This record gives sequence, structure tokens and C-alpha cells, in this order.
Amino acid sequence: MVEFDTDFPRISDEHLSQFVIDVFTSYGMRQWDAEISAEILVASDLRGIDSHGVPRMAFYVDRLKQGGFNLEAELEVVKESAGAIRFNANNGFGPPMAYKAMERCLEKAREAGVCMASVGHSNHYGIAGYYATMALDHPGMAGISMTNATPLLVPTHGKVALLSTAPIAAAFPAGNEAPFVLDGATTAVAWGKVEIARRNKKAIPAGWAVDEEGLTVTDPFDARALMPLGGERDTSGQKGYGLSLMVEFLCSQLSASLWSRDVTGSRVEEIVPSDTSHAFIAIDISAFRDLDEYAASADELLGSLRATAPVAGQTRVMVPGDPEAEAYADRTERGIPVHPEVVDTLRGIGTEAGVAVPF
Amino acid sequence: MVEFDTDFPRISDEHLSQFVIDVFTSYGMRQWDAEISAEILVASDLRGIDSHGVPRMAFYVDRLKQGGFNLEAELEVVKESAGAIRFNANNGFGPPMAYKAMERCLEKAREAGVCMASVGHSNHYGIAGYYATMALDHPGMAGISMTNATPLLVPTHGKVALLSTAPIAAAFPAGNEAPFVLDGATTAVAWGKVEIARRNKKAIPAGWAVDEEGLTVTDPFDARALMPLGGERDTSGQKGYGLSLMVEFLCSQLSASLWSRDVTGSRVEEIVPSDTSHAFIAIDISAFRDLDEYAASADELLGSLRATAPVAGQTRVMVPGDPEAEAYADRTERGIPVHPEVVDTLRGIGTEAGVAVPF
Repeated sequence: MVEFDTDFPRISDEHLSQFVIDVFTSYGMRQWDAEISAEILVASDLRGIDSHGVPRMAFYVDRLKQGGFNLEAELEVVKESAGAIRFNANNGFGPPMAYKAMERCLEKAREAGVCMASVGHSNHYGIAGYYATMALDHPGMAGISMTNATPLLVPTHGKVALLSTAPIAAAFPAGNEAPFVLDGATTAVAWGKVEIARRNKKAIPAGWAVDEEGLTVTDPFDARALMPLGGERDTSGQKGYGLSLMVEFLCSQLSASLWSRDVTGSRVEEIVPSDTSHAFIAIDISAFRDLDEYAASADELLGSLRATAPVAGQTRVMVPGDPEAEAYADRTERGIPVHPEVVDTLRGIGTEAGVAVPF
Repeated sequence: MVEFDTDFPRISDEHLSQFVIDVFTSYGMRQWDAEISAEILVASDLRGIDSHGVPRMAFYVDRLKQGGFNLEAELEVVKESAGAIRFNANNGFGPPMAYKAMERCLEKAREAGVCMASVGHSNHYGIAGYYATMALDHPGMAGISMTNATPLLVPTHGKVALLSTAPIAAAFPAGNEAPFVLDGATTAVAWGKVEIARRNKKAIPAGWAVDEEGLTVTDPFDARALMPLGGERDTSGQKGYGLSLMVEFLCSQLSASLWSRDVTGSRVEEIVPSDTSHAFIAIDISAFRDLDEYAASADELLGSLRATAPVAGQTRVMVPGDPEAEAYADRTERGIPVHPEVVDTLRGIGTEAGVAVPF
């Protein structure tokens, strides 16, 4: 997950954030929307999730230039009850819409104990994990975040991509231990990992991706779509497929949005709303048990996992979220390593947008 | 998943159910508890999930004989808010406790839109999918079910089993199409699949299980613990590990129960409460959108998946839940194929319990 490519030029997160804000506002995005979007994009880079941070700027900018987002959109409440809320993002930019929806979901969970929020007619929201970890800023709250996306997952025994990487992210706090933060696609990998393999000209493991006939490939340039988590049927790929479909139901089917097959990305002739959808769950742990007892218990659980004996050839066992926390510590200190090709792309974006490029 | 072992003797579900009820009541279980437990166990056999049905009778009976369950236990509400409820099962038998908890969770979701139920101090509850599919008996409801269990999952890069198979089950209704029903362990496979391979003396795929050093094995008799869904790290096993840990948090950490490392099964010297815990989510779809529109949309989604072109060598693409529905149709009609060794074990159990063995 974390690739400490120390040979890459490093750019400070402040410089990257300001650049993203400047580019986004130059295309007409509101100031707060641009700020929160920069925060979420650069959080991905800081966490070492190189598939989802500023390397995605070209995608966002393409769509901004084509007028693919409604930059005046307001997040609208369509239906609401004590533990459930459905929003219409009205084709607004994904990150600010998703951020506001999760904020409201967390507020409602304070009242109801648990709240599920469904966000329809939205757009690509960046890393799923960002919204789950928003819960960690609120004492005693846990968060879950899911989204659908453009079709990339081929169902088990199929040959056409119909579902999406449909990530599931979850963040649970602890006491003294670092929190548990899961953030993973229900495909074997995110498409960005194939792109990284292409940039680095490295083969990919069998079980990641398939060609246009639906057959497993190891050359990333032959990859056309992704296999579900678990890979082939005999290693239980049908479970990854099932998890992706569960996310699909929670996102598009609750929010009355298009399902992944029909969600459009940047590779289309005519720009139509992508109709991406998200689902969030916020949990007030104190609705279930005493928070101090919870913190002690979570510490014992996470500490035990971190202290368990490693298999031969490995030095330690990590908890999901640990690699990202280590990348964060490194990158806030030393800057974010950005692939030279990405730096070139960003400079081109900055020049075209007429904004300062501080790297 | 489905193994149509037509060579095996077939036993009708009525005969199996009555047998289970008779055995359970002979050990002092209340009549309704025994009936709902038989319903849930035999549902597993009917759905073709041979790892979880009557082959588990020996496990339950061992524990019953040792007084491992509190057969007088009542399901107790510990904490309750609009969208959240925590139960204490007081070491009662798992299936009836879990059934009652999910029933109450569904009722509360009718009011709040969504409800999450946490059940602590329980016992092995059978197939996770049963409780998710309870939602399908209530128009417009969807259900999610999770449980922890005895330690069987080795964390990525670890060598000791600390977490459990921690299944995630989800059931979403449709209109005319058969529903979507996911029911899968977050390990590569359930331990029962290793047991089936042992019974059939067949090798298991790499990526399923590890030996006592934490190294991958293909001989099922060398298997000591399970790998997470995704297998090794390079095929994203850390995601299956993360999903198992998410289930662990939702089960044991919300319900103030033991985590999987400390959950005890039948292989212990001294019987103590297993302290298994479960989590349920019930969703009233009408809290999000119109039910007729939902049904049409879910039909289009599920119908499209079922109609998509298969990869070379396969005849069709299924939706999770389809293999189980086909097994159910076959087995309610023709009886449940039971491995001869299991039949022998069941006969022994019946004789010892002094009940009629109608097969």
C-alpha cells in the first residue's frame, strides 16, 4: 500500500493543497468547496494512497473544463427519519457534498445512536476512508463509508465489467492505541494500482485484473477490468463480488441513483452527470456501552494484534490503517513523493489554469 | 458452494428438523428455542451450506451435554436508543437469541429507518445469512448480519489465529427477480470447507489455509488456521483481515464481549461461556425511497447481472444467493444429501439422546 519512493521529488502538503485550491477555484468552484476538496485529495497523498490523491487531478480538471459538475449545487435532504437520511447532491462536486453528508450523519447518530446516510446524484468523492475517519474527530464515534463508481469489476464468471471497485472504509477509535482504519476496494485492488504498475512498468499478480475477454492477465497494459477481492472462484472471488454488490445496493439502490454499469467517468464523448452515489454509517459507541470501557477494550484488541508474532520473513503484524498512519507521519514531515510524470501533468494543469505552481 | 453430492443418502428436511428438535429438547432446551434452532440449522442444509447445518450437531450436543449453555436465559436489553439496541444473551443458545434480536432490530428499523443491534454474551448462531434473510419476510426491509467466533483467521503477516471467520451476510429484496443474498466469511473460506475437503480427501487451493507456522498449505490435514479473504498480501489478504476486524469491532467491541482470540468453542477442557457476539443492521428501504421504484430498479440491476455474458468455459453469471436458492429448490423437493459419516454421527447422537432417528 505504502510506497516510499524516495527517489521521487517531494512536495509539501501545504504547497499541494494551495495548488489544488487555486486550480479548482480558477474553474469556478466555491472557496470552501475547493478547500475541503483539497483537504480530502491531499489527505489521500499524505496517507500514501497514491492511487487517489493529486494523480487524479487530471480527471477532475477534465470534467471541470467540460462543465461536468454543478458547482452551484446544494446538498438537498430528500427523506429523513431518526436513523436514516437520504441526500440529493444535485451533481455537485463529490468531496464537499460527501463531507457535508457525513457531518450530518454523525450529528444524527448522536441522537439516534446509529444513522445511515445515502447520497445520490453525486460524483467521485476521493478516498472512502476520509469520510470514515471524520468520525474520529468526534469522541466516541465510529464511521463507515462506501461508494459506487464507474464499472470496473467483472462479476465472478462474467467477462464484462458491471460493478465498481465499491470500497468499504471503516474507522473505529481506541484509547491509547492508534485507531483501526480500514479503507479498501472490494475489487482485488483499486484501478490506481494497475496505473501505478503501468507507470513503473511492473507485472501485476494473477488475480488482480482481466483482459477484454474476462481472462486473468499479469501485464498491466493488457488489463481492462478488475477481479473481485478473492480473485478467481476457487479462492472465493464471488465474496468480493458479493461485497461490491452489497455496496452497490447501499449506495445506488437506496439513493435512487444509477448503478455502476451506468455511472460515467471522464472517458465519455458527451458529459452527463456521473450519478455516483455514496452510503455512510455513523455509530455513537456510547449508545452501546461506556466509552472508557470501550477504549480499554479496543486498546487491548489492537495492541494484541500489533504485538502478535510475525510469520517467518516478516518483521511485524500491522493493523489496517497503520501503513497509512506511517506514510502520514513521513509525508507531513518530509513532503509527498510525487511521480515525475504526475509532477509534469500537474505543472501543465497549473499553467493552463493560470495559477502559481509552487513546485 | 453448492455440492450436489447425489451419491449421498438424502434425508427430508422435515425428518431432519424433527430430529434436531427432539435431540435439543432431550437436553433440556425449551420447545420454541429448539424449533427455531432446528429451523435455522436445517435452513443451512437446505441452502447447500454444508459446512454449517446438521454436520455441526456434534458440536452443539457436546456443549449441551457439558452444560455449556444457559438454557433458561432470556434476551435482555442493556441499552436502547432510536436506532441502536444492545442485548445481553446471557449465554443462551445462539440461534433463538439471535433470532429474537434480529426481530426486534427489524421492528425498530420500521420506526427509525435504520437500526443496529449488538448482541453480547451469546453463542454460535449458525449461518449468518439466516438472520439477514429474515428481513425478506418483511416487505421493503433489508438486513445485514455479522458474528465473531472462535479464533481461526491469521492476520496478514502473522502466524497465530487471533480473529475469526467473521462472516458478513446481507439480504436485499427485489420485485420479480430473486433477492440478493450474500453470506460469506471474511476468511478465504469457512473452516467447514476445510472439513469437507478432509472428509472428501481432496487438496485445498493455496490461499485458503496455513499450518501452525503461518505458512500456506494445500493438504487440508496440515491446515491449522485460515487466511483472510484475498489470501496473501500481494492479492490483498490484508483487506479480508480488515473486514474481519471491522466485524470484530461491530460485534465484540460494541457489545462488551470477548474478542475472537478469547471466544471458546467445543475444544476446551473446562466449559466457560463462549461469549460470542453478533451485530445486525435492519434497513427500512421506504425510509430512503419509494418501494415500487426500488423494486423495479433492483430487478433491473439483478436481472442485468444474471443476463451478462459469461467468460469462456462458464455457462452463466450468478448473483450471490442464487446457488443457495437452487440448492433450496432441489433439497426441499428431493431431500438433503448428507455425507455418510455425518449420518453415522447423527445416528449416534440420536441413540445417545434416546430419540427416534427417522433416517
